[in-house]
Amino acid sequence: MTGTLDATGIVERVLRGERRAVARAVSLVENAAPLLREIMAGLAQAAGRARIIGLTGPPGVGKSTTTGALVAALRKRGESVAVLAVDPSSPFTGGALLGDRVRMQEHATDPGVFIRSMASRGHLGGLSWATPHALRVLDAAGFDTVLVETVGVGQAEVEIAAHADTTVVLCAPGMGDGIQAAKAGVLEIADVFAVNKADREGAHATVRDLRQMVAQAERGPGEWKPPIVSTVASAGQGVEELLDRLDRHAEHLRGSGELERRRRDRAREEVESIVLAALRERLIAAHGREGLDRVAAEVAAGGDPYSAAEELLTMGTWAMPSSVNSGPQTAKPNER
Amino acid sequence: MTGTLDATGIVERVLRGERRAVARAVSLVENAAPLLREIMAGLAQAAGRARIIGLTGPPGVGKSTTTGALVAALRKRGESVAVLAVDPSSPFTGGALLGDRVRMQEHATDPGVFIRSMASRGHLGGLSWATPHALRVLDAAGFDTVLVETVGVGQAEVEIAAHADTTVVLCAPGMGDGIQAAKAGVLEIADVFAVNKADREGAHATVRDLRQMVAQAERGPGEWKPPIVSTVASAGQGVEELLDRLDRHAEHLRGSGELERRRRDRAREEVESIVLAALRERLIAAHGREGLDRVAAEVAAGGDPYSAAEELLTMGTWAMPSSVNSGPQTAKPNER
Repeated sequence: MTGTLDATGIVERVLRGERRAVARAVSLVENAAPLLREIMAGLAQAAGRARIIGLTGPPGVGKSTTTGALVAALRKRGESVAVLAVDPSSPFTGGALLGDRVRMQEHATDPGVFIRSMASRGHLGGLSWATPHALRVLDAAGFDTVLVETVGVGQAEVEIAAHADTTVVLCAPGMGDGIQAAKAGVLEIADVFAVNKADREGAHATVRDLRQMVAQAERGPGEWKPPIVSTVASAGQGVEELLDRLDRHAEHLRGSGELERRRRDRAREEVESIVLAALRERLIAAHGREGLDRVAAEVAAGGDPYSAAEELLTMGTWAMPSSVNSGPQTAKPNER
Repeated sequence: MTGTLDATGIVERVLRGERRAVARAVSLVENAAPLLREIMAGLAQAAGRARIIGLTGPPGVGKSTTTGALVAALRKRGESVAVLAVDPSSPFTGGALLGDRVRMQEHATDPGVFIRSMASRGHLGGLSWATPHALRVLDAAGFDTVLVETVGVGQAEVEIAAHADTTVVLCAPGMGDGIQAAKAGVLEIADVFAVNKADREGAHATVRDLRQMVAQAERGPGEWKPPIVSTVASAGQGVEELLDRLDRHAEHLRGSGELERRRRDRAREEVESIVLAALRERLIAAHGREGLDRVAAEVAAGGDPYSAAEELLTMGTWAMPSSVNSGPQTAKPNER
């Protein structure tokens, strides 16, 4: 691939599965390049074939090791695999991702495996916006399975995991009782639980707590009940069983119509995020930095922020229909 | 305070500093209640007096202990203090906040101290939107200092810390070398570094690494150079020195015009977030869930998301100027 940035050329090469073009396209996503719009349009038709599996869980639970073990198991089946490691919490955990990549190096020379990390470039909500784009690239490139691993621990990671067809929530013994580790939003997004480091003390208690929690959750008839798998990913133990549960969930998704529903919901979020990014750009373009600064100075001096917002919304015709550009061109919140 | 929800009554009581009204107003912020708009308008004029200090840093670094020590030191001076503990990463760390509150209990009966936690209610970007609102409530209630403590570790926490006038980044020995712990976004937002647990092995190395990093950062003439303070917050050591550095930074902010600039930038972000929340509401109202579902189904079936976004933007007159409602009425990303 040459160094020229030509959307049609990139699309053609991604569709042929050329690694360098795939890497280039993901970089364009990461940088919210203007070229993206054309690339996404070119790739859209070819997407929708890959199985997308999300992995999330607290730090130290063994996400990268589990991802690596799943890659090995899928390769044994002859499937091609792409790994997208997403790190929304780069400011404090910037070192983790590099370590993950090193641990993944056993797959680095395998042409059936593509590993890529993606970090926030500082735009607010940037990764929620970028993740579906990057997944479309990897999907259209023909990978059978795409594993999305989130590195951090917050709400953002949960949101990113929600871009998957199937979400694996990892727990480990001794990291707080299972109920606490898997409370709130995590139970809602978990399709499969993996209790990793299951050779450690307390693993039984963690499994028991999770089982109880899953049993207590309300569930309609025919609704999926998240299974709990014990793994020692570093030794490859339980990984085949985990893969089997992932297969069963994939069957459930197809059979129940849930796959279609999930993909539609994700598409809706993606389109909404593009619409809002476009509107934000227009807001800035219409009022100019000076106009926004003037309104902001009024609010900072004790003005009502809602009246200020209304003023921006009613001044001029900036919110009128017109065309859409790509990328969340959001300023960094800590830009001073 | 009675149970009735009346904006004028709440505003009056918050302005008198009545605790129950303050707590109620923060709850209304947390729940993005429709009443908020009127309350914010009523409080705006009285805000802008409090000094707002943000505390952030990785888990285990001693944020709550440091917050507690700062509260004690400020109380000794006779200042009233509000603490807002913000937890954007509730899904995995839901237990942490409770523990933090318990550790704060020594101040629980002090009428000069108000402690409140605020968690994400599941709306995307909800806390970036809610934090300036909650700060306005505490500010208008007349607290001399408001400490904003973030519980998590990600980009969201950094963004929340950026709502402060002065941001303290906490580090601790043995949590990765100082440079790694404080890389990227953290250096940009840190006004003061505190190396907590400074009685532990490796504290000197952490301070040295931070000092080197601060020395290497580019800085214009007259620009603030973040000082590095060693603390053992659990024993109250170094806390007076930390407070002294916070005072000096406050002087710098006032003297350099930086305070005004920071507050204006934050106001601009707040107004923009209100505008975008309003536009998102209109988008949903204009097209209906069915309309958005139809467009999303097309994208999920291989349609181009940008063309779909454009279709939504050009259909109808939903983006036309009109009035603004309060709150980010965003659906949870994992709602299925």
